[in-house]
Amino acid sequence: MVDGGHKAFGWAAKNESGVLSPFHFSRRENGENDVTVKILFCGVCHSDLHTIKNHWGISRYPIVPGHEIVGIATKVGKNVTKFKEGDRVGVGVIIGSCQSCESCNQDLENYCSKLVFTYNSRSSDGTRNQGGYSDVIVVDHRFVLRFPDGLPSDAGAPLLCAGITVYSPMKYYGMTEDSGKHLGVSGLGHIAVKIGKAFGLRVTVISRSSEKEREAIDRLGADAFLVTTDSQKMKDAVGTMDFIMDTVSAEHSLLPLFSLLNVNGKLVMLGLPEKPLELPIFPLVSGRKMVGGSQIGGMKETQEMLEFCAKHNIVSDIELIKMSDINSAMDRLARSDVRYRFVIDVANSLSPASVISCDIKEHVDHEVSVMSRF
Amino acid sequence: MVDGGHKAFGWAAKNESGVLSPFHFSRRENGENDVTVKILFCGVCHSDLHTIKNHWGISRYPIVPGHEIVGIATKVGKNVTKFKEGDRVGVGVIIGSCQSCESCNQDLENYCSKLVFTYNSRSSDGTRNQGGYSDVIVVDHRFVLRFPDGLPSDAGAPLLCAGITVYSPMKYYGMTEDSGKHLGVSGLGHIAVKIGKAFGLRVTVISRSSEKEREAIDRLGADAFLVTTDSQKMKDAVGTMDFIMDTVSAEHSLLPLFSLLNVNGKLVMLGLPEKPLELPIFPLVSGRKMVGGSQIGGMKETQEMLEFCAKHNIVSDIELIKMSDINSAMDRLARSDVRYRFVIDVANSLSPASVISCDIKEHVDHEVSVMSRF
Repeated sequence: MVDGGHKAFGWAAKNESGVLSPFHFSRRENGENDVTVKILFCGVCHSDLHTIKNHWGISRYPIVPGHEIVGIATKVGKNVTKFKEGDRVGVGVIIGSCQSCESCNQDLENYCSKLVFTYNSRSSDGTRNQGGYSDVIVVDHRFVLRFPDGLPSDAGAPLLCAGITVYSPMKYYGMTEDSGKHLGVSGLGHIAVKIGKAFGLRVTVISRSSEKEREAIDRLGADAFLVTTDSQKMKDAVGTMDFIMDTVSAEHSLLPLFSLLNVNGKLVMLGLPEKPLELPIFPLVSGRKMVGGSQIGGMKETQEMLEFCAKHNIVSDIELIKMSDINSAMDRLARSDVRYRFVIDVANSLSPASVISCDIKEHVDHEVSVMSRF
Repeated sequence: MVDGGHKAFGWAAKNESGVLSPFHFSRRENGENDVTVKILFCGVCHSDLHTIKNHWGISRYPIVPGHEIVGIATKVGKNVTKFKEGDRVGVGVIIGSCQSCESCNQDLENYCSKLVFTYNSRSSDGTRNQGGYSDVIVVDHRFVLRFPDGLPSDAGAPLLCAGITVYSPMKYYGMTEDSGKHLGVSGLGHIAVKIGKAFGLRVTVISRSSEKEREAIDRLGADAFLVTTDSQKMKDAVGTMDFIMDTVSAEHSLLPLFSLLNVNGKLVMLGLPEKPLELPIFPLVSGRKMVGGSQIGGMKETQEMLEFCAKHNIVSDIELIKMSDINSAMDRLARSDVRYRFVIDVANSLSPASVISCDIKEHVDHEVSVMSRF
């Protein structure tokens, strides 16, 4: 246990097998600017899977993943005015930034070069952060979100990553400026469909198979479903879309997506394929098309997104699991066998019984941060 | 000679060797909407070289290249009010479009799917177009430009392609909105440097060698010069640029360019590499960066660009050549041995002496148009 900290308990991956198992560690004491959060629910994000298996080559074990956290504030520091004990709060992908750079000054902490991620990252005091597959977390109040009354804690949790990840680029890339524009969602980011519809977009789901067609339309509210292996329909759809959000993390071809875009069309990459993709230049040039990215969102915009979702009754479709189900859930996630997000019922299923104690005193000096790869 | 047409004479490539030689052909008679232009000067564009050597796989021989044409109107049709005989005019990369689609209605004829290129393309009447390495051209007045008094005919000619190709994306991608933004020009598009400076941008030339450093700064007015092989300077420049215009047609890595861009940075591709490039996704996502393209500009914007260049005394740095020098000029262009554009002194060097007659009656039914590849 780190000096002055207090006990915490969660499930951690200990190595690249990615297998999660019970793990004792510590959190810092609640500081003047901190909020201590008793964790109720934590969403299971694809990034969690990538990280515990070291797919991006930047993992430092042990790792307690989880960055879609909803809980109750149990302690607030003396400088914290926005929250009080008993408030329902959220913690997302980031828990720190420099607070002084150009990005931070524009409420774009998510692009700060000193960004601190919720897990597999290091805080400014040198301690390694651990995520939300655990009982408690201590977070600077500037990175804690009010969780609106209208949002359920379990199905609302994935909004903290999956929600802001699609909301922010919809605003940045101009999808919300004129109503009635046509958005393609490749890879079935189901929250992208819901938020896109709430913004007044016409939404077509683009998928390799027709398997999810009926539920995409009937349940998620998509206007249309386009199967990429149907060459006639793909041909008919050439040049019909204004925007495409590509949520596919696997290696794939961008050319068919470019061909679906109209002049000035924008392709937004949200997945993180491990290898570079092929970029065909002709369609970019001949149709003034572009491909851009986006990474979660700033704190102000994340709060705005939560309010927007509460107002429009947007939540994630989830499968609620116990902590002990996590390893099989990860296996299913790896084969996309989930509709659409797992959420861990942390408060009701995390028990410290029969656990091997393992304190963290690690202070890594030469870690590879995510940012240094870019 | 096509029935009803009149004689024309130029230099054409007859096959993929790309060797240009004298060539008799015909132009259509001047129609109600047409302007007949006696050609004075024609710029030599890299696209000319790509096309005569069939680098893009879409060339149909014989080809008279040339799409940076400055000349004198010698005949105008009865519906033409914008021009009169004796006017100095320009003809650029495109000479036709559908005039009715969404792109055309927005003055973006350059993105019309029925775009007609000045050469290696076919007009709506089925005849194949031939370009400006010739004595005369007949063009619909909607695709003829007024050539402003302040612009010299020879050094102004390359603006009709090279000028608009950089001017249009500077406006579209927001480079002209706030003054003082930092633009990198990769591959030394020398007109990009000049127009960028006129728009108030800070301009850094990005090049593989320091060979052109002094002239980039002293002669073209660049603020700085960055050699990509200087790893220390490349490191110092990470995250300093708001925009990069990439004019390199050869296969190259985009990763170093992305790293030079700041958050929200935009990379604009203007070259047309034959093969897809590698697109690294991490920098797009982590820095909300994008890569887009742009293809010349619409007629209205091209006219605006010519006025802008006249006002700011922007012309191309050229090497004036005779028609008979064209094959050696192409050889030099292929190894980038020109500062910065060749312009053919057509009116003073094109002589129909000792020429093999070769009429065109070809009407190709199954040609591959440029657009069909996209």
